[in-house]
Amino acid sequence: MTLTLETAQRLIAAAFEAGSKQDVAVAVVVVDRGGRVLASGRHENVGYINLDVAEKKAVASVNFGAPTHAVLNMVKDDDLLIKSVLAQGVLSLLPGGSDIRLDGELIGAIGVAGGHYSQDQAIVEQALATIN
Amino acid sequence: MTLTLETAQRLIAAAFEAGSKQDVAVAVVVVDRGGRVLASGRHENVGYINLDVAEKKAVASVNFGAPTHAVLNMVKDDDLLIKSVLAQGVLSLLPGGSDIRLDGELIGAIGVAGGHYSQDQAIVEQALATIN
Amino acid sequence: MTLTLETAQRLIAAAFEAGSKQDVAVAVVVVDRGGRVLASGRHENVGYINLDVAEKKAVASVNFGAPTHAVLNMVKDDDLLIKSVLAQGVLSLLPGGSDIRLDGELIGAIGVAGGHYSQDQAIVEQALATIN
Amino acid sequence: MTLTLETAQRLIAAAFEAGSKQDVAVAVVVVDRGGRVLASGRHENVGYINLDVAEKKAVASVNFGAPTHAVLNMVKDDDLLIKSVLAQGVLSLLPGGSDIRLDGELIGAIGVAGGHYSQDQAIVEQALATIN
Repeated sequence: MTLTLETAQRLIAAAFEAGSKQDVAVAVVVVDRGGRVLASGRHENVGYINLDVAEKKAVASVNFGAPTHAVLNMVKDDDLLIKSVLAQGVLSLLPGGSDIRLDGELIGAIGVAGGHYSQDQAIVEQALATIN
Repeated sequence: MTLTLETAQRLIAAAFEAGSKQDVAVAVVVVDRGGRVLASGRHENVGYINLDVAEKKAVASVNFGAPTHAVLNMVKDDDLLIKSVLAQGVLSLLPGGSDIRLDGELIGAIGVAGGHYSQDQAIVEQALATIN
Repeated sequence: MTLTLETAQRLIAAAFEAGSKQDVAVAVVVVDRGGRVLASGRHENVGYINLDVAEKKAVASVNFGAPTHAVLNMVKDDDLLIKSVLAQGVLSLLPGGSDIRLDGELIGAIGVAGGHYSQDQAIVEQALATIN
Repeated sequence: MTLTLETAQRLIAAAFEAGSKQDVAVAVVVVDRGGRVLASGRHENVGYINLDVAEKKAVASVNFGAPTHAVLNMVKDDDLLIKSVLAQGVLSLLPGGSDIRLDGELIGAIGVAGGHYSQDQAIVEQALATIN
């Protein structure tokens, strides 16, 4: 199964709507199963590095097949592991990333950055709820 | 003046619609005045490297303040110049990129890749026509 | 459909066998749909850069959905296009790369380097023939 | 003495077999004395970044001439040293990498990633045991 551009765009629209309700401006990136960007959006008032962070959250989620906060929970008590993951450069474990699944199959991931990471995570969850 | 996410998303939608009419699946990137991505989209059947090429066309356009084909025309007879620009790595001079202006002021750029570059250029022009 | 490690390894074994018959030592890389390496092998007497070239051939094939020699044929008369593709850095258009398809669907790609590119291409074709 | 592709492939097969017995899907990379990849394999369900991590473990092992857990033990109480090694970017000190020796001579290294690093280390040791 393939994550389509149409679904990626619907997720991004839903993420911005969820952000608006919380008065949080964000950057959102959706990647496919291979960790390649399908679609992205960044509010013009959000620092451009947030788009990069959002991509890193999405990449971490598709690589580990789990939301970033879940991966973080698994590694948080192991200082070496956290340092090693962060040293990887292409990954972020900050909450606000999640795998995207269709009938249980991993088909891509979404990452949000720009608010506090707890807000980013809430936005991701609300966006994903709109397609499930 | 600032290029907004909303305008960027309208441009991307217009580019995909123009591509559809020509039966060309593409990747589209819109960058702001600082050359930073505001929004992007890639049809799921388009090779992922096209998104990178589209960004390089947009970056070249915002950097030179002109469409990529116009920049190309200026440098095409100078082999050293073309080689030097390409060696820069972050730029593409292939047709299919254009600056975005509001009342003459440079506010960003758009890049399209995925079709033949003449198609990419036509798509960019059709997309820009929708906001002017 | 997913390209499995098992199929990737069978392709690599077949490529080395085809190379042996021609007395050509090579490097072989198989990537998945996202252009990510699934398996690779390099004869110990083959220069290490060949593995990188083989990956670039595979990446070009999965990106364009066609063998590198076919892509090359499409762009070879357009000097700007060839220069632009090569400037991309992650791609090689030298013959010796091919998309891998299952029931017509693109699931990955293979790249071979180390011999003359005509030999590399023959090896790829012979390897692919073993799984079709 | 030279690490051959054949030995590298036997090590990779042994590592996957050891992983299977523990129900752990992994990525495995074998590098030569120059830190250049000789062979690699990644189970299709293992995140693609693990192949990169496996290579970094192998590179660290061949560079230091010791298993990654041994290097880690030497530097773990020196925060600056650990941070500096990780900042190097091409190295990982996570357990799961080991030098490969023939009659005591360093000829290459192997790295495994995908399980917990204690599992990765066990897989490396079991794989190496098959060629000694």
